[in-house]
Amino acid sequence: MKLSKLVGERIKEVPNGAQLKSHIYLLRAGYIKQVSSGIFSLLPPAQRVSQKIQKIIREEMDALGGQEVLFPVVMPRELWEMSGRYDSIQEELLRFKDRTGHDMLLGMTHEEAAVHMAMNTVKSHEQLPCMIYQIQTKYRDEARPRGGLIRVKEFTMKDAYSFHTSQEDLDSYYKKVYDAYNRIYKRIGLKNFISVRSDSGIMGGKVADEFMLVTDSGEDRLVICDKCGYKANMEVADGVRQEVESEEQELQEVFTGNAKTIEEVCHFLEIDNAHTVKAVCYETESGELVVAFLRGDYDINEKKLAKLVKSEIKIADTDKFGLVAGNIGCVNLTLPENAFVFYDLSIKGLNNFVTGANKDEYHFKNVSASRDLQDVKFDDIALVKEGDHCSVCGEKLTLTRGIEIGNIFQLGTKYTKTMGMKVSMPDGSTMEPIMGCYGIGVGRAIASVIEEKGDEKGIVWPMTIAPWQVHFCPLRLDDENVEVISYELYKKMLDAGIEVLFDDRAVSAGVKLTDSELMGMPIRVVVSPKTIANGTAEITMRESGETYYVSFANLINELLDLIDDQKKQIEE
Amino acid sequence: MKLSKLVGERIKEVPNGAQLKSHIYLLRAGYIKQVSSGIFSLLPPAQRVSQKIQKIIREEMDALGGQEVLFPVVMPRELWEMSGRYDSIQEELLRFKDRTGHDMLLGMTHEEAAVHMAMNTVKSHEQLPCMIYQIQTKYRDEARPRGGLIRVKEFTMKDAYSFHTSQEDLDSYYKKVYDAYNRIYKRIGLKNFISVRSDSGIMGGKVADEFMLVTDSGEDRLVICDKCGYKANMEVADGVRQEVESEEQELQEVFTGNAKTIEEVCHFLEIDNAHTVKAVCYETESGELVVAFLRGDYDINEKKLAKLVKSEIKIADTDKFGLVAGNIGCVNLTLPENAFVFYDLSIKGLNNFVTGANKDEYHFKNVSASRDLQDVKFDDIALVKEGDHCSVCGEKLTLTRGIEIGNIFQLGTKYTKTMGMKVSMPDGSTMEPIMGCYGIGVGRAIASVIEEKGDEKGIVWPMTIAPWQVHFCPLRLDDENVEVISYELYKKMLDAGIEVLFDDRAVSAGVKLTDSELMGMPIRVVVSPKTIANGTAEITMRESGETYYVSFANLINELLDLIDDQKKQIEE
Repeated sequence: MKLSKLVGERIKEVPNGAQLKSHIYLLRAGYIKQVSSGIFSLLPPAQRVSQKIQKIIREEMDALGGQEVLFPVVMPRELWEMSGRYDSIQEELLRFKDRTGHDMLLGMTHEEAAVHMAMNTVKSHEQLPCMIYQIQTKYRDEARPRGGLIRVKEFTMKDAYSFHTSQEDLDSYYKKVYDAYNRIYKRIGLKNFISVRSDSGIMGGKVADEFMLVTDSGEDRLVICDKCGYKANMEVADGVRQEVESEEQELQEVFTGNAKTIEEVCHFLEIDNAHTVKAVCYETESGELVVAFLRGDYDINEKKLAKLVKSEIKIADTDKFGLVAGNIGCVNLTLPENAFVFYDLSIKGLNNFVTGANKDEYHFKNVSASRDLQDVKFDDIALVKEGDHCSVCGEKLTLTRGIEIGNIFQLGTKYTKTMGMKVSMPDGSTMEPIMGCYGIGVGRAIASVIEEKGDEKGIVWPMTIAPWQVHFCPLRLDDENVEVISYELYKKMLDAGIEVLFDDRAVSAGVKLTDSELMGMPIRVVVSPKTIANGTAEITMRESGETYYVSFANLINELLDLIDDQKKQIEE
Repeated sequence: MKLSKLVGERIKEVPNGAQLKSHIYLLRAGYIKQVSSGIFSLLPPAQRVSQKIQKIIREEMDALGGQEVLFPVVMPRELWEMSGRYDSIQEELLRFKDRTGHDMLLGMTHEEAAVHMAMNTVKSHEQLPCMIYQIQTKYRDEARPRGGLIRVKEFTMKDAYSFHTSQEDLDSYYKKVYDAYNRIYKRIGLKNFISVRSDSGIMGGKVADEFMLVTDSGEDRLVICDKCGYKANMEVADGVRQEVESEEQELQEVFTGNAKTIEEVCHFLEIDNAHTVKAVCYETESGELVVAFLRGDYDINEKKLAKLVKSEIKIADTDKFGLVAGNIGCVNLTLPENAFVFYDLSIKGLNNFVTGANKDEYHFKNVSASRDLQDVKFDDIALVKEGDHCSVCGEKLTLTRGIEIGNIFQLGTKYTKTMGMKVSMPDGSTMEPIMGCYGIGVGRAIASVIEEKGDEKGIVWPMTIAPWQVHFCPLRLDDENVEVISYELYKKMLDAGIEVLFDDRAVSAGVKLTDSELMGMPIRVVVSPKTIANGTAEITMRESGETYYVSFANLINELLDLIDDQKKQIEE
């Protein structure tokens, strides 16, 4: 490919609003163009990367016996009503009416479509386990798109669905997919990725793992135990609370005036927030009040709370429920009928804490859980925080951040049961197959590789997914000798099957070299009047920066070896 | 692939509502499944065919210097307002609001997205010509989906967009794409296809060619001159009208009572419809009346009429305009202001015809165009009919039918002008590039191959796009000897790189052979206790039906040769 003809521009300035490394470089190096908020076109180099990633994914899915199919982007309401998700998924599911007034939607995932395909076509236990997958455009009406290809509305995704006759069979297949995912990330050149236990969210099911690129720029918070290997998304992470000991003292009601927030109350009473218990109030979908108490130094885990309540929750308007905002406490609290109250494990055994007195300007002091909160059940409803200990081995937990690069779920029979898919068993009975589902976003994989490997100069592509393997920069192409030799070398590279981006533009050496660093091909080859005088070309490895000279006679073989070596290094 | 594990079922019955051969076989052989009207999932074999077709398309586009990109399925209103098409395209453009209330649409074509990508990234004449293409899902809110993959709402399409600095350059590139399209159809195994001049429709521009599979099941009508090679879609076809000669006679007003339609009037007056002139009345988008007169034996060409009127047209409510429906004639007609009247060429020089008297129960008889329709301009507004002559060479035209399998357009500067894309020219000036665009639907290509090659037993795949090259049917797999040898042969075929579908099911010989014919792989290999006794396998060619025996020792080489030969036969 001649760079002069390549559709795309390289720009020096950091584009407005772009903060993540991958977002900045994808825009600056001419890989993507925004069409609308969270919606991008892929320019030729990005499409090349996307296709190489897709090829790796296909190889790994096919190796698992996966059968590639294609589900529709646009689906009818009826299909999603079968599973109940037409109503249960909120606004991120984009619904619309077609010209006949029929309710349709844009697929954000394809469990329903997968079961629709497998129903009546997979009828017997003999056909199981089987897995169908597609690589297709998805649309999620994301409220806050951000970070270029990291969080978008429209994206290309590989999604796979497996069907099993027993939990053991799913477990064993799930493990194989888990291993395949690890291979995929490795093969696309990622190193710093882990898997964590996660919430199954809108998918349903009980077991779910997310693959995470560990990076400070990630929006997911991760909890890791370096000792026993426990790893979880903060949303589902368990941890042992830090204990706060003190002797039980006498309960008092104290004036706290306008001090309402935990910070204000702590400041007013000159105490630490670990000696307070705060209330967080939510409302369920059906309008019931949920009051959650937890120690003042912890934050609420809304996902866990919602699971206990078995409803989506939103922050409540406390006035509506007759509560004294800022003075709500766990002693002498009067609640409306049908209200839920939860107490976090951080309160269990806690003495001498401050909590609201449920009337204006007053708090209780020296509350004791064992004395003042009798018959109370303590639940795990707080987020793990720095200093908490591993619930498995007791070691101190590490908190870090990550970008979700894939997820796998054990769905159970949620979809086969609701949609009525059955297979016949050897004994003549029928059963609803147990399902797994497995997703990877291709665009996010592209961005993640840039997040991990990009440096201050630009993108650094791994050899396995680079749009071109070699970036060929002849300097002073206006020199006839350079021109003749460059076009000869270009032809030789093409003839040898090397994927080469040939910078044939009449621009300065500075522009060519800077652009090559920004665009990120693994190998750069430079020729100039000077190197030609020596009969050599200069090779520079983008990642290591290593530079050396090779004679023209050896150039092609050297490049082929480098390409081969780098691929092997990544894949093995 | 083992057939026992393949997702999909083979059914004997013709599915309800399916009429086209391709629709019936795609459903019966387990290639597609309908999810909603005009929306299908592709099962594994169809996805394999689709990918093989896509590969051929990519090779041909890349050979033209095409750069593959990806445009979004969902686009914002603003982008389509730039070209004016947000308002000009009717209901087939699906519009919806996202969760923020923003007006969005589903891409049915991507001219706007292509110009959006090329703007600012293609800035100089030196970058031209350039072509970008994508293979992506499109959605067209089709009013009447039909025929399985022939006319659908959602489809996978290759669309390409080229940019040029001169009409000559576009002409020359357009010719190259035209040739590439011919190669694509040939390579996917079609024989009976032609290209015809066509209407540019919603794309705009002046030159447009459609590629058509010639078949009676096609919904497009085609006009062909076997002598000079003139070929056009009926919508734009020109033809020389058949003359009807007679001596001019005296104009009379005659009672015709309740005879209103041409058939009724002809019957009442005992005349041929070629001696009548009928009126067809339309209304423009802005509500103006359009009256079109044409000889009674011709039908109106609405596309041509709309072009003359420069507006979309719909059948008018004649009462609203004070016309006497059934008695409208071209003599003494009183029309509202702003009405348009057109006279078809078939009326020119016509004598002694009958036309409405513009009052109830009466027609004029013996009308003479040269005497009674003075100062009238005659236009070409009738459809070509059987017996008309070629406007180029005078030969009698042939009418046939076809399925549109692709189209190419010269768009001119419609999009670059409205959207403001400019490139700099050598003299320092700027210009709006001239564009071409080029589309092929992948699903329709799949169906077209079945339409052309399918026989009474099922699908007949060309070797180049068959989901599998070989369908391997061991009969009596319960026989241990058959089982051992079959699995050995299967392994050998896989090891040799042969794409093989292995019918490992415990079903009767009849079912296996019928299924293999229905599914359509080019080569069938059968082994049975009988062939094994002779140390041979039976090879049957799906298309020719030719059957012969090959020794086990020679089987793999024979298959490799057959595959190679058949590919060569198609591609060369």
